[in-house]
Amino acid sequence: MTLSHVRIIGSGLIGTSIGLGLALKGVGVTMVDSDLRAQALASDLVKSPTSAPVDLTIFATPLGAVHSLLDSEFATNPESAFIDIGSVKSKVKVEVSTSAIPSTRFLPTHPMAGREMGGAESARADLFQGRAWIIDSQGVDQEVTGRAALLIEILGAHLVDLDSGEHDKAVALISHLPQLVSSLLAKQLIGGEASWLELAGAGLRDTTRIAASDAKLWREIIAANRDSLEPLLKSLHADLGSLINSLSDENAVATLIEEGQAGRARIPGKHGGKAREYTYLPIVIEDKPGQLAALFDECANASVNIEDLSIEHSPGQFTGLITLALSDSDAKKLTDHLKSHGWSVHSPRQ
Amino acid sequence: MTLSHVRIIGSGLIGTSIGLGLALKGVGVTMVDSDLRAQALASDLVKSPTSAPVDLTIFATPLGAVHSLLDSEFATNPESAFIDIGSVKSKVKVEVSTSAIPSTRFLPTHPMAGREMGGAESARADLFQGRAWIIDSQGVDQEVTGRAALLIEILGAHLVDLDSGEHDKAVALISHLPQLVSSLLAKQLIGGEASWLELAGAGLRDTTRIAASDAKLWREIIAANRDSLEPLLKSLHADLGSLINSLSDENAVATLIEEGQAGRARIPGKHGGKAREYTYLPIVIEDKPGQLAALFDECANASVNIEDLSIEHSPGQFTGLITLALSDSDAKKLTDHLKSHGWSVHSPRQ
Repeated sequence: MTLSHVRIIGSGLIGTSIGLGLALKGVGVTMVDSDLRAQALASDLVKSPTSAPVDLTIFATPLGAVHSLLDSEFATNPESAFIDIGSVKSKVKVEVSTSAIPSTRFLPTHPMAGREMGGAESARADLFQGRAWIIDSQGVDQEVTGRAALLIEILGAHLVDLDSGEHDKAVALISHLPQLVSSLLAKQLIGGEASWLELAGAGLRDTTRIAASDAKLWREIIAANRDSLEPLLKSLHADLGSLINSLSDENAVATLIEEGQAGRARIPGKHGGKAREYTYLPIVIEDKPGQLAALFDECANASVNIEDLSIEHSPGQFTGLITLALSDSDAKKLTDHLKSHGWSVHSPRQ
Repeated sequence: MTLSHVRIIGSGLIGTSIGLGLALKGVGVTMVDSDLRAQALASDLVKSPTSAPVDLTIFATPLGAVHSLLDSEFATNPESAFIDIGSVKSKVKVEVSTSAIPSTRFLPTHPMAGREMGGAESARADLFQGRAWIIDSQGVDQEVTGRAALLIEILGAHLVDLDSGEHDKAVALISHLPQLVSSLLAKQLIGGEASWLELAGAGLRDTTRIAASDAKLWREIIAANRDSLEPLLKSLHADLGSLINSLSDENAVATLIEEGQAGRARIPGKHGGKAREYTYLPIVIEDKPGQLAALFDECANASVNIEDLSIEHSPGQFTGLITLALSDSDAKKLTDHLKSHGWSVHSPRQ
């Protein structure tokens, strides 16, 4: 079995990341979006044209947009297999059952990957590497499941076959509850002094990172999965109430922290994707125009490949810290090169 | 003013990190701990012996241990200046006022740095680089404040002078509340299926990272700061109750997510810099050596100032996406310049 032409409806983070990953392996891809700016950017990034017949159509839109597209996409490519990538699975099964697409030709799926930044700009070909990709194969044609399995393999994810109802309970706990908790916590910051927030450290940043997520996507997800979420939120509400009543009881507080440790320890360590093994090279540069160009000139001279980079500097500070991610061998090569040309290269972080 | 010999009581994460940072700059350090294993490990890591008189004594113990050490440390080094590093400041001021140490010789301080892993093993000399280090200089000798300011400078932190009462309110919001929320969330995982937790992604990992923190430290911190924490927890409890009552109301859910976004956006960018309004310009580049240098040459030619940047690409991908953060006017200037030179610049995201 092969994939010749995958049609991706939705040029956001997930759709474009799928497109990038497929194009890298030579699969023809068509990117579609009702937002023509997003479609143009995604198509320019993916660049994998083909005139082959569509063998797989992926609904990579927000949850609420799938329903209205089912009939028209089936009419356009009746020979295609169809999958979605939505965060809640019970609902889409019901929608398909009343659409033109036979239930045997539609596979509900959910890749367990994402970022708090949406849009084609944030897409990356390796978004699914090492991640679980859930499907619910019950009652679906083997040919359709086979095409989806090939897609999942090409993108480096691993297939997990799970009943839609159980999927929805699982994601309520591991994804939707953390989203709401992060939003609730971040909301409390509205009442704080700006000078307090300037003191924030990594703990606050990490706990509120996903609070930056898109409200339009999440309003639909929460509403679609409210039955699984409600008991979890009620349990949290009761625990929070108990904490408030025992704030001055050090033993009760210690018990809560220990229960949190126990829950945290249940998250398997080596999951969520292969962490890519880069060496992170810190370089202190003068914060003035031309320094970045000069640094990247040196990188080109040294013929090294920069995999990622970040800059840290504060306004008015004389120096900035740029961290380059490279392969181990490139990092060594670049370190030698830069040091011999007078740059301030520090030892890589372990 | 110089620091010749700093005596650090407490060989945990913070104490040992201070010791490492000072030793790196040639300051003599003595590491002390009631746990002799921790003291031996920290002393071996820090290795900065001296026989000079102690000019600064740092209480780097858990909160509850400071009180019983005040008199004996003053008796040992009556000429020393004294500081602590505890997470709650009002309590230690009261304790010092009834001790042998004159209040003018004791400066309450709090470095805004930490890790969820404790102990000398987790210490790092650069733990305080770029972080805020709060002091409450009210009523303290200039000489004592001066020695602490030198310590903070040597460790690469920046000094923030703040009243202890206001400090305690600030950390309740930006540190203690996130800790309790993370623990409460992680506790809910105890009820989930192990197979569900295998599907966990970065969102759950980040929101529960600090739930792994030490219960003995936190029981004292929460109890010591309960007056500042209680109203925040009650506000969170009320918001959570409202959410439970409006789970099927998509508008109410969207409002919560948006409020969370607004709260999250109040956290300044890296290094305590002010959050600034930039235009983020996406540019698709070929993924080959020299492209970044060429791009930054163009930026220099256009005389624009790049405030931040990010690169997204995967190894082996044909194209990369670089996003430049610039002022609105510089973004317009650069867009025109790059387009006229054949670069693939896309519209900024709104």
